[in-house]
Amino acid sequence: MQKLVECVPNFSEGRRPEVIRQIVGALADLPDIRLLDVESNADHNRSVVTFVGEPAAVGEAAFRLTQAAVALLDMEQHSGEHPRIGAMDVIPFVPISGVTMDECVALARHVAERIGNELAVPVYLYAHAATTPARRRLPDVRQGQYAGLKTAISRPERRPDFGPPRMHPTAGATAVGARPPLIAFNINLATQDIRIAREIAKGVRESSGGLVNVQAMGVDLAEQGIVQVSMNLLDYTRTPIHRAFELVRLEAERHGTGIVGSEVIGLIPVDALLDVSRFYLRLTDFRREQTLELRLLETQ
Amino acid sequence: MQKLVECVPNFSEGRRPEVIRQIVGALADLPDIRLLDVESNADHNRSVVTFVGEPAAVGEAAFRLTQAAVALLDMEQHSGEHPRIGAMDVIPFVPISGVTMDECVALARHVAERIGNELAVPVYLYAHAATTPARRRLPDVRQGQYAGLKTAISRPERRPDFGPPRMHPTAGATAVGARPPLIAFNINLATQDIRIAREIAKGVRESSGGLVNVQAMGVDLAEQGIVQVSMNLLDYTRTPIHRAFELVRLEAERHGTGIVGSEVIGLIPVDALLDVSRFYLRLTDFRREQTLELRLLETQ
Repeated sequence: MQKLVECVPNFSEGRRPEVIRQIVGALADLPDIRLLDVESNADHNRSVVTFVGEPAAVGEAAFRLTQAAVALLDMEQHSGEHPRIGAMDVIPFVPISGVTMDECVALARHVAERIGNELAVPVYLYAHAATTPARRRLPDVRQGQYAGLKTAISRPERRPDFGPPRMHPTAGATAVGARPPLIAFNINLATQDIRIAREIAKGVRESSGGLVNVQAMGVDLAEQGIVQVSMNLLDYTRTPIHRAFELVRLEAERHGTGIVGSEVIGLIPVDALLDVSRFYLRLTDFRREQTLELRLLETQ
Repeated sequence: MQKLVECVPNFSEGRRPEVIRQIVGALADLPDIRLLDVESNADHNRSVVTFVGEPAAVGEAAFRLTQAAVALLDMEQHSGEHPRIGAMDVIPFVPISGVTMDECVALARHVAERIGNELAVPVYLYAHAATTPARRRLPDVRQGQYAGLKTAISRPERRPDFGPPRMHPTAGATAVGARPPLIAFNINLATQDIRIAREIAKGVRESSGGLVNVQAMGVDLAEQGIVQVSMNLLDYTRTPIHRAFELVRLEAERHGTGIVGSEVIGLIPVDALLDVSRFYLRLTDFRREQTLELRLLETQ
């Protein structure tokens, strides 16, 4: 099986197409990675790049992309709704096939060290690569955001894992980590009552007594006349999609409403959907190699 | 998207490994096809080969495999439980991606013509490639089997589509067709009563008033102490897996029993399982390109 790592860097520019093109252009002469997606959001003033390849090639690509973002962006001029700490805000490495989480942690450390040493940008390791439990969650690493971290970085508990213990004058800081694939999964309810969506979200998410590895909030989609339970599934291998779905269904019933539809945002590992089939069809011994397309990928 | 056709030839040798190796060896110097599976069954005295590639390469490979089977097998010496009419018994072409059913029909006709002309084996077109409705179903094409077809072939309604209107002295006849992927799906029941499995099979299959595109029978798995509803789903794009599953569940409940597990035999197109996820999770707008692995296959 080919060793495949996915990398999903987020950088702090989502409005100037020419600048976005220049930054993503840093990947152009790297034949060993495959660029799958670039998504820019003007409100967030942020772009999300998705590419895959073998570990070493993906690490090199992540470094070059960071180099370009550091050279071209100025956080002193940046505004946007999304929480961020730097020009290259966050770089997660995600094991896809033939690669362990430990290998992705090693890759994250290697790239983090290069960013710290060669670009003089302070770097925080997070998620499975974190060096302390306080840095496992990205929101904790980002606490205070770009402006707040300028002063907080001098405190011992906020000292970066690599690079100088002070913000880069224009590029701020960067978080680098290793994590399982994240699934953005939204469920639409047959009601317009946002309080119901919020109640259900509360019942489903880890932070208020629900499922581990699940973040959830109620969202009002006023234009569509519906409300939504918007979720991030942080580790589908332990907390699969169908478990979250069935719990939302149960909570919705208790409020006298139901589910009218659901959506997956962005990319999803096919294994997450194979697990759904295994569950509902009660498949007892289904191997992923039994799917023709995955067999094709593996025999390459 | 790459044009991909799957071919699943069945030839009449499942006992002599050396002969099977020699026949499958005909594919060895064809770099443009990928051999995915060879499954031989001694009781049936039959082997099933699965390979994929672009249409022209797959057609050439199917012809060469037939040439080898015709040269090496003697139907006069053959015995086995599985219905068959010739050394290369049946060659279905299956559209996988970027290819229409009509293209597979054209491919089937082209290969059938070559087998008829170059190997002097009579060929019947079946399934979507059939030239008359009476030849759509493979069991109808095989009627009388090898022994019976020897005399029946001279009747006008059994005249082959290509090749001489008489059996090849050692290789018999061959059926060539185009069809959607076939899914072999078995459901195990929480009972040992074979009559219940048979009743459920009767309620589910097309031939006795159930779902179109579904064949089903009750099977006694005495060693495992269970009974099974064993199904072939002939066109999952129109009659999806979950519809068959839910109907079996309903019929099982009516008999006071339930489903303890299910299994897919052999290979399955990933789209069939994506449809299962779409149904149970009520996904409203999920595109196959949202699965990371399929995106990788397509960007090659």
